[in-house]
Amino acid sequence: MKAAIVGGGVIGGGWAARFLLNGWDVAVADPDPQAERKITAVLDNARRALPALYDRALPPEGRLTFHANLATAVVGADWVQESVPEVLEVKHRILPMIADAAGPNAIIGSSTSGFKPSELNAVGTGAIVAHPFNPVYLLPLVELVGDADTCARAAHILRGVGMYPLTVRQEIDAHIADRLLEAVWREALWLVKDGIATTAEIDEAIRMGFGIRWAQMGLFETYRIAGGEAGMAHFMAQFGPALSWPWTKLMDVPEFNDDLVDLIATQSDAQSGHLSIRELERLRDDNVVAMIRALRRTGSGAGGVVTAHEAALPDAGERDSLPVTVTRQVPSSWTDYNGHMNETHYLEASSLATDRFMQMIGADADYIASGRSYFTVESHVCHLNEVHAGDRLTVTTQVLAGTGKRLHLFNRIWRDDVLAATVETMLLHTDLSTRRTSDPDPAVTARLSNWVARHAAMPAPNGAGRYVGQRP
Amino acid sequence: MKAAIVGGGVIGGGWAARFLLNGWDVAVADPDPQAERKITAVLDNARRALPALYDRALPPEGRLTFHANLATAVVGADWVQESVPEVLEVKHRILPMIADAAGPNAIIGSSTSGFKPSELNAVGTGAIVAHPFNPVYLLPLVELVGDADTCARAAHILRGVGMYPLTVRQEIDAHIADRLLEAVWREALWLVKDGIATTAEIDEAIRMGFGIRWAQMGLFETYRIAGGEAGMAHFMAQFGPALSWPWTKLMDVPEFNDDLVDLIATQSDAQSGHLSIRELERLRDDNVVAMIRALRRTGSGAGGVVTAHEAALPDAGERDSLPVTVTRQVPSSWTDYNGHMNETHYLEASSLATDRFMQMIGADADYIASGRSYFTVESHVCHLNEVHAGDRLTVTTQVLAGTGKRLHLFNRIWRDDVLAATVETMLLHTDLSTRRTSDPDPAVTARLSNWVARHAAMPAPNGAGRYVGQRP
Repeated sequence: MKAAIVGGGVIGGGWAARFLLNGWDVAVADPDPQAERKITAVLDNARRALPALYDRALPPEGRLTFHANLATAVVGADWVQESVPEVLEVKHRILPMIADAAGPNAIIGSSTSGFKPSELNAVGTGAIVAHPFNPVYLLPLVELVGDADTCARAAHILRGVGMYPLTVRQEIDAHIADRLLEAVWREALWLVKDGIATTAEIDEAIRMGFGIRWAQMGLFETYRIAGGEAGMAHFMAQFGPALSWPWTKLMDVPEFNDDLVDLIATQSDAQSGHLSIRELERLRDDNVVAMIRALRRTGSGAGGVVTAHEAALPDAGERDSLPVTVTRQVPSSWTDYNGHMNETHYLEASSLATDRFMQMIGADADYIASGRSYFTVESHVCHLNEVHAGDRLTVTTQVLAGTGKRLHLFNRIWRDDVLAATVETMLLHTDLSTRRTSDPDPAVTARLSNWVARHAAMPAPNGAGRYVGQRP
Repeated sequence: MKAAIVGGGVIGGGWAARFLLNGWDVAVADPDPQAERKITAVLDNARRALPALYDRALPPEGRLTFHANLATAVVGADWVQESVPEVLEVKHRILPMIADAAGPNAIIGSSTSGFKPSELNAVGTGAIVAHPFNPVYLLPLVELVGDADTCARAAHILRGVGMYPLTVRQEIDAHIADRLLEAVWREALWLVKDGIATTAEIDEAIRMGFGIRWAQMGLFETYRIAGGEAGMAHFMAQFGPALSWPWTKLMDVPEFNDDLVDLIATQSDAQSGHLSIRELERLRDDNVVAMIRALRRTGSGAGGVVTAHEAALPDAGERDSLPVTVTRQVPSSWTDYNGHMNETHYLEASSLATDRFMQMIGADADYIASGRSYFTVESHVCHLNEVHAGDRLTVTTQVLAGTGKRLHLFNRIWRDDVLAATVETMLLHTDLSTRRTSDPDPAVTARLSNWVARHAAMPAPNGAGRYVGQRP
C-alpha cells in the first residue's frame, strides 16, 4: 500500500509516520527544501513513541521518498492526504492537481480543521475531510466528512493503521472536536486577557481536574456519573439552569491584537520556556503513550483502539527452531534510574511470551473463561545484557517439560542478536473455581505433547536448573 | 486532625474519603437518613482507588462518624467543608451555623462551583471557596478563592492530603475550570440539539483526541507545541484569526426545555445505559488511577502531585526483626486474566523493596547521580499464595550476603499474615559510565556491613538457593 502526503509540515509528517510505521510506502510531496528535515524530525519522535503503545511489533517500515513534484508522489497511491496551509485558495489549487494525478480508486483526504467538504469540493475533486489530531502518529481520532461511500472506505483503511475514524454525518464549520476546542480557546483567552488566570494556571485547572476525566470518558458520560443513579435527566435538571447564569453572558470574542498575542506568548514562555519544543514533544509523547497504555487494561477509548489494532498485527515466526512468542519495542516507561530496562519488565516480557505459548496450546481466552488456566509457581531470571528504550525484543519459548499439570518453560529474551536474559519458569494447571491444581483438557495436553516432542532432542539450555549465585 | 463534612452527597462523600484515607477523623453532618449509605458507597470506591495511586501505604484510616446535628459534627474540626446544594439561600443559612460552631482557627471551605466568596460572605462567615472535582478522592484540583491568608493556610493543608490547590487571585463567577467546562457544555448542547453529533460521538471526539492531550499538558502548552520552534506567538498568528470565523458566531444559549433534556438523556442511555452508575464509577476510577500512575514517571500534572505526596508519607518499621521495605495496596491494574496479581508485579514489589534497601545503605538518588548503582543480575521468584486487587502487601528484606561488589538479598512478600512470595536476588555494584562492575563507596560498604552483621545469625530462608522445579 502506498500513501502520498502532500504538504510536509507537522501534520503531514504525522500522517507520513502513521502510514510508514504501519508498513505503507510513503511519498512526500513538498517543494520546501526543508521538508525532508522536518519530516525526519517527526519520524524520530514517532519511531520511539508509536511502537511503544503495542505489546507486539508493528510490521516492517515501508519505503519513504521525497518529491518536489506533486504528480510523481501521488501516482499509484491508495491514499493521498492533503495537509497544505489552511487557506481555501491554496487548497483549491492543490486538490485538482491531486485529483488529476491520482488513480480512480485513490482516497483523497484533506487535513483541514475548518473547511466543509462542500467548500473543498467546489472544484470537484472528490476529496473528503480527514481531519487528524496532533500528534497524528499517536492520537487515534480522525474526523471524516463527505461522501458516505468514500468515508466508509476511508474508515476501513484508517482502522488498519490503528486510527479511530469518526464520521461526521452533517457538514459544519470546524466539524466537531474543533468546535469544542474553539469554545474553550475563546473562554481561556478572556480569562488571560482579564487577568483572572495565567496560561499556566489555566493549564493546571485542566490537567489536574477535568482533563483526566475527559481522556477516558469524555463530557457526557462523565456528567452521567455526576447525575448518579437518577441519570442524565437528573443531571440536566441540576446543571441545565446554569446555562442562563451570568457567566454565560461572556460570550463575545476578545479583540485579537498584538497586546493579546504578547500577553499569551509572554506567559507561555514563563510557563514552558525552560523546555525546547522538541523536549516538550517528547514529554508529551511519553505521557500520551503511558496514558494510552494505561487505558488498554479496561479497553476504554484509545486503549481499546490499540488493543484491537494489535490483534490484527502479523504473527512472528521461528528463531533457532523455537517459536517466537514475543516481538516488541521497549517503551521508555519500562526503563528506570539506571537508564536501562528495569528488571520487572524482563519478567513482563517473559510473562507475555508464556501467555502466547498458552494460546498456542489452546489454553486461550475461551479456555480460561471455561474455568481453567495455568498459574506460574516459580521463575528464575538471569539478566545477561542491558536493554534500552526503543530496543526491539524477540522472545523464544522452549518447552523443557510438559506432562500432567506441569508446564516447564525456558524463555530467551533477545535484543537483536544479543541474548539479554533467560527466564526459566514453572507453571501448574489450575482449576479457577477451586484454585487447586488439576489436569488440563485432553486437547491442550495433546498440543503440549507435540511441543514436548519437538523440543525433546534440544540440549538443556545454559541457565536452566540454576540457583541464585551459582557459578556459570 | 479532624474534618467536618457538611452535606453528605457525592461531593461531600468524596471529601470525607480524601480526609479519612489520609488519616484524618471525619465527622459527617447531614440530616438525610440516607447520608451514611451514600457516603459508604463513595468510601467503597475510594478505598479501592486512592491507595492504588501510591507505591507506599497511606496512613491508617481515621475515625468516621455521622451526625444529624451540624454543631456536634463541626466542633473541634480543623477543616469544615460545606457541600450543601448549590442554592445561595441554603448556603446563607448553613454557613453561619458552621461559623458559630467552629473554632476560631478552623478553615471553612465551600464546595460551590459557581458562587463568589463575596456572595457567600455576605453573611460574614469567613468561608473561602474550596471547589473540588469529582471524584474528589482521586482528582487533585481544588480551586481556592477568598481571603489570601486563609487560602494560603488551606493550600498547605490540602497538599497534605495529596491535593493540588489552585488559588484564584480574582473572584469571578464559576472560578476558572467551570468557565471552560461551561463553554464546552454550551457548544456540545448545540451540536446535539442541531443533530450534528450524538452524545456518544462527542465523547469519542474528546477522548480519542484532545482529551488525552489535556490530561497531561492542558491547552496552552499543547498549542505551544503546535506552534513549533517559532513558539506561541506563531501559533497565535495561525490560529488567532479563527476567532472571527463563522463558527464562533454560534454563541448564544440553546433554550433549556424538556425536549433538550429528553434528547440528551435518551442519547446518554443509548451510549452508557448498559452499565450502572456504580459500574461506570469503577471504570472511571480504574482508568483515572491507571492514567495518573502512568503520569508518575515523568512527573507531569497529577502524577507529580502523587509522587510528592508519597514522599511525605510515614516510613514503615520492622517485621520479624527485618526492615519493612515496601508497604502498599495492590492496584487493580496489577491483576490479570486469572483474577489475581500477575507474576510480573511480584517482581515489581521486590524491585521496589530492593530500591528502598539501596536507599537505606546510601545507594540513593544522589549516589546514582554520582555514577554508581547496583544492577540486578539474577532473581528467583517463588509464588506461594495468590494476591488480589486491594490487598495490602508488606515486603521485608533480609541480607544474605554483602561483600565487595555483591549484594545478595531475600525479599519476602506478605499479604497480611500470609507469605505470598519470596524473591531471592543477586545484585552487582556497577560503574554507570563504564557499565562494568566496581566496588561501592566505603560509606555504602560500611552501612551494608552493618546490615550483614545484623542478619548474619538468621537462619537461611526457606526458598533461597533453589532451582526451578526443586522439591521443597
